[in-house]
Amino acid sequence: MSSTFGKIFRISTFGESHGGGVGVVVDGCPPRLALEAADVQSQLDRRRPGQGPMTTDRKEPDTIEFLSGLENGLTLGSPIAMLARNRDQKPQDYSALNDIPRPSHADFTTQAKYGIRASSGGGRASARETWARVAAGAVAEKWLAADFGLRIVAWVDSVGETGPADVDPATVTREMVDTTAIRCPDQTMAKAMEKAVKAARKDQDSVGGVISCVCRGVPAGWGEPVFDKMDALLAQGMLSIPAAKGFEIGSGFSGTRLRGSAHNDLFVQKKEGLGTLTNRSGGVQGGITNGEPIVFRVAFKPPATIGTAQQTADFSGAETTLEARGRHDPCVVPRAVPIVEAMAALVLADLALIQRARG
Amino acid sequence: MSSTFGKIFRISTFGESHGGGVGVVVDGCPPRLALEAADVQSQLDRRRPGQGPMTTDRKEPDTIEFLSGLENGLTLGSPIAMLARNRDQKPQDYSALNDIPRPSHADFTTQAKYGIRASSGGGRASARETWARVAAGAVAEKWLAADFGLRIVAWVDSVGETGPADVDPATVTREMVDTTAIRCPDQTMAKAMEKAVKAARKDQDSVGGVISCVCRGVPAGWGEPVFDKMDALLAQGMLSIPAAKGFEIGSGFSGTRLRGSAHNDLFVQKKEGLGTLTNRSGGVQGGITNGEPIVFRVAFKPPATIGTAQQTADFSGAETTLEARGRHDPCVVPRAVPIVEAMAALVLADLALIQRARG
Amino acid sequence: MSSTFGKIFRISTFGESHGGGVGVVVDGCPPRLALEAADVQSQLDRRRPGQGPMTTDRKEPDTIEFLSGLENGLTLGSPIAMLARNRDQKPQDYSALNDIPRPSHADFTTQAKYGIRASSGGGRASARETWARVAAGAVAEKWLAADFGLRIVAWVDSVGETGPADVDPATVTREMVDTTAIRCPDQTMAKAMEKAVKAARKDQDSVGGVISCVCRGVPAGWGEPVFDKMDALLAQGMLSIPAAKGFEIGSGFSGTRLRGSAHNDLFVQKKEGLGTLTNRSGGVQGGITNGEPIVFRVAFKPPATIGTAQQTADFSGAETTLEARGRHDPCVVPRAVPIVEAMAALVLADLALIQRARG
Amino acid sequence: MSSTFGKIFRISTFGESHGGGVGVVVDGCPPRLALEAADVQSQLDRRRPGQGPMTTDRKEPDTIEFLSGLENGLTLGSPIAMLARNRDQKPQDYSALNDIPRPSHADFTTQAKYGIRASSGGGRASARETWARVAAGAVAEKWLAADFGLRIVAWVDSVGETGPADVDPATVTREMVDTTAIRCPDQTMAKAMEKAVKAARKDQDSVGGVISCVCRGVPAGWGEPVFDKMDALLAQGMLSIPAAKGFEIGSGFSGTRLRGSAHNDLFVQKKEGLGTLTNRSGGVQGGITNGEPIVFRVAFKPPATIGTAQQTADFSGAETTLEARGRHDPCVVPRAVPIVEAMAALVLADLALIQRARG
Repeated sequence: MSSTFGKIFRISTFGESHGGGVGVVVDGCPPRLALEAADVQSQLDRRRPGQGPMTTDRKEPDTIEFLSGLENGLTLGSPIAMLARNRDQKPQDYSALNDIPRPSHADFTTQAKYGIRASSGGGRASARETWARVAAGAVAEKWLAADFGLRIVAWVDSVGETGPADVDPATVTREMVDTTAIRCPDQTMAKAMEKAVKAARKDQDSVGGVISCVCRGVPAGWGEPVFDKMDALLAQGMLSIPAAKGFEIGSGFSGTRLRGSAHNDLFVQKKEGLGTLTNRSGGVQGGITNGEPIVFRVAFKPPATIGTAQQTADFSGAETTLEARGRHDPCVVPRAVPIVEAMAALVLADLALIQRARG
Repeated sequence: MSSTFGKIFRISTFGESHGGGVGVVVDGCPPRLALEAADVQSQLDRRRPGQGPMTTDRKEPDTIEFLSGLENGLTLGSPIAMLARNRDQKPQDYSALNDIPRPSHADFTTQAKYGIRASSGGGRASARETWARVAAGAVAEKWLAADFGLRIVAWVDSVGETGPADVDPATVTREMVDTTAIRCPDQTMAKAMEKAVKAARKDQDSVGGVISCVCRGVPAGWGEPVFDKMDALLAQGMLSIPAAKGFEIGSGFSGTRLRGSAHNDLFVQKKEGLGTLTNRSGGVQGGITNGEPIVFRVAFKPPATIGTAQQTADFSGAETTLEARGRHDPCVVPRAVPIVEAMAALVLADLALIQRARG
Repeated sequence: MSSTFGKIFRISTFGESHGGGVGVVVDGCPPRLALEAADVQSQLDRRRPGQGPMTTDRKEPDTIEFLSGLENGLTLGSPIAMLARNRDQKPQDYSALNDIPRPSHADFTTQAKYGIRASSGGGRASARETWARVAAGAVAEKWLAADFGLRIVAWVDSVGETGPADVDPATVTREMVDTTAIRCPDQTMAKAMEKAVKAARKDQDSVGGVISCVCRGVPAGWGEPVFDKMDALLAQGMLSIPAAKGFEIGSGFSGTRLRGSAHNDLFVQKKEGLGTLTNRSGGVQGGITNGEPIVFRVAFKPPATIGTAQQTADFSGAETTLEARGRHDPCVVPRAVPIVEAMAALVLADLALIQRARG
Repeated sequence: MSSTFGKIFRISTFGESHGGGVGVVVDGCPPRLALEAADVQSQLDRRRPGQGPMTTDRKEPDTIEFLSGLENGLTLGSPIAMLARNRDQKPQDYSALNDIPRPSHADFTTQAKYGIRASSGGGRASARETWARVAAGAVAEKWLAADFGLRIVAWVDSVGETGPADVDPATVTREMVDTTAIRCPDQTMAKAMEKAVKAARKDQDSVGGVISCVCRGVPAGWGEPVFDKMDALLAQGMLSIPAAKGFEIGSGFSGTRLRGSAHNDLFVQKKEGLGTLTNRSGGVQGGITNGEPIVFRVAFKPPATIGTAQQTADFSGAETTLEARGRHDPCVVPRAVPIVEAMAALVLADLALIQRARG
């Protein structure tokens, strides 16, 4: 149940942090889509650990292998299975964790749920699981770009107290985002963010942040009313990312402070049809896209695994001090950028297919 | 697709704002649960329009009729169908809307999606659809209370610029919440909020707000890792409520400003087992409940339908002025309190059953 | 879980045999379909009890009420809820059943499953539940006819030892089927069948039978490979009908006796494209339609509820004699004809929409 | 959509006949189940091609690799991914098939559905896809045996005109089944069956057959009323197996010839509770298990791919003669025995978990 996402464009993921590998089966991708490893690898490379001072030292080439679903560079309509072998495993780093649940990590809850857990690393709660999301999302994105010219771009909006960044959702590109290691196209802000991450890393600590994302070129009419609203499924997708703690679309929490007369997006004739003067709705009204860009933000807490000593309790309830070793990101947001884009692509592709079924 | 929620405790809703009625089928409710109309009606009454100056004037007794699934006050395990007839319909109020899509409402997107829409009111995008959520949620809640002693309480945390309220999630009750018309147990803040709503109403305008919710008595181990995380499904459920624009759990957006050493919830032995000293996780770690109360917040935009004149465009793109008539809430949050509770109950019941399947 | 069928064209049914009514919510029906009560009522009338000597005496007008999803005779794309109130209830007929489970009925298994059951009649196992299937199926069928010119016709192929009927699947119509009370267009065979039913009825006994069904005008390409094959979902749909015990498509069980060289359907150019000379595949190859008519058969056991005395045991295990009263069909097949058509329509509509999503 | 089966015990399969491999992800398997490769390999070996004169010559060691979900011989509750690499590929055997659709195979329908198909072999319609079913089914079976002592045994009941076999469902074991190459425990009948297969093989032809299956030790109460009946989902599962054309449970088609008084299974007190004297219901009443063994039969057509020359048409409609090369089974039933067992296990495990959720 837990590892399947989507109704028609549906993915099933698998793999522990330190097992044989991680992978994903994409079922329901339309046939005859041109798809090659490079389409997927480029996003995987942005998610990969070991990219520099902003990320964990763990080295995983994360090279993708297509197991099925493709022939001669075209999708067959059958399930596309993708696999990455685990390489740089150091389960010994985690031996202390057998007895002491890491505060704010999933060690305790996984044990409570299953009565068992992987002896090393976070198992399915590990960031390594997100490889599968990014791989599947890249396939979704390829189709969305090919059939609709749709473009998804996420960037780091804030790190700790530093932000928000000054970015124009109408024009920002991934190239602009990738000009900085922290993945924030606002150069001045990016420098301050990177400084904040380095300081946290030096202190064997971690820091949180916020990611913004825009989806441009989404036609009006996607998203189902009532429970499978576009924004509701984006919220599920985003909150399902490890460390995510909040989601807002359009004006979000700040919009609650306004009156309707100041908040409403007035209609105006545009060359491509009826549009809105402002976009406080974030591209979605009543759960259905209105043709304006979808704009949303996702909050990420500071990573739970830190080297700093913590006064906590072990599984038996005895007081103890934990100094986590392992290799962990001091801040998840730069690597989470392609994950946010991937989850957005998966939601969009599924709702696009559902709308297409309607005829 | 759009009107079904949940996997095992699954609901299907139906009904337009101004059609024959609204209703819901609850499939998967455990058998032999004591259930009577009063269990459901009490929450429906809190959602009902016409409760006073904080809400729309529309009068709907909203009396529930059970069509199936019950005998002698016990659930049979078969689908529980519940129906409320529509009474106070004034479709003529909406005749102007045939030509002019209301800004930030779902008129335009519904038309774009279906090529047709109900001639009066918002159809499925109407707040009237939420009757079905509250009815179904009350059934879920009855089961959660009976089997786990679980309690869900939501309240208004802010209205416009007014807030946040000073409320203790550990002790707040629905009785305390209902001492004020605005449904905020902080009496001082409540008065200011009510003033803000009345002012908006007088100006034929509307205003947004934020609702907080706590679920106490949730066992550790509920929620699926990866995509069906407890917080991810709560996020979907909450964002699926009309006018919702944001969701955060635990420390949420403000937690992104902290470092891990300040954010982590340290473990400590409690009399009922291992617990945490603080609850910045909001009761969920890695998508799975940890036994601490679930605490989250939902942002609601100001209602889109306002009496104030708006310079907008009609469906043909021609400029026009819209002064909506109809009867609408100046602020959704007081009536949204039981809706938030209902959606929380539906998510919790479904994830509880899925976990119970695991054995 | 149990009362939902279909993935995109999805129905949820409810209602006990002797409760407030039976109904169904159809979610996912395409918008702008012309639909009126008569479209549905005509099939409901064919399913209705009290049609004469072939059926139970129970009188239920079964008049349909649309609760939602329609306006001005067109579907809105929102859930279509349909309801029929129960009228002719005689729960007292069933009081003996509180202690004695009817042999081969669902009394015992329902009690084993839920630890509770409706005190009268078969609850969800009653034939009355099939009202909802027929109502929903009629909506599906209307769409299939409108968009594809698709036609579904079922007929009684055998009753007890009497059969098979001599019927041409290429030309048979519902009008031809309805020329006989037993719903068999082979007049000679029909007379013998009706005699068999009357004899069983006179003996306070019951008798089984087989229904054949053809779906003409199905395009090639519907049905998903692997698990959601057209024939696999038809099999599920048919076996889900009360009293069904078998399903076969095309050559079915008799085809197992042949060699491949005698069984294969050779391709031949037809005016509408590539077709097959024979149709032992029953219109489905590899789970996907090939453009030839879908032809299948469904086995129905003799109804379990009979007036004849049966030496059996009560719930406590004590030996006893049961002479059921109640009002029951001596043979289900004439009334099951529209139910088979309905389930076929539901499967076809869902798989048609899924294929359309593929683009 | 098409490659996922089950709601809680859910599998997703992937892999083409001649691609990188075949595999399956099992999500929802309960944690802490003892599971090792041998548990799965033993059933895979029974499905493997190249077992002798009854099967195709294709050699595939089909050795299983666990990619995830296990540690120290115990399931973790996370998805269990299993993979088998393809080895003995001879796509050149299929080059002729690019132009000529094999009669009664899925070449034509796959092309009609997707507008593309794998250039060699049947793609997803290949028998190779069933590797994944057997692997997943073996996991389900291990759990069912461990938690309920449940046993599933299938055997060949007939081949062509030869049959039915004389087998006692109450006592038959897999060891007895495997004493003959054709997998029929009735030794005399087995010899005749094997002769029929060899004759077909010699004639470059194929032959059909029927498989019987019994599930012993199933508790009363599994299976959902209405659409997800035990027999309905078994029917779907069985008809989803390549070449399956029919399904019947209990008395099936032959039971339609009886009257109710002769067909009903009378209740009788047994030492383990209320049982039935006969088992014409096949262990299922109203879609719910009654504690008696589940007994059903599955019809398999003769394999479509034969060496004998066939007068057919190519994709363009031109008449042509096809003499298939490739390597194919002359009769699917001996290798289908473990596939039938696997699909039964998957249905049972899923419905067991759904019932357990109910509490």
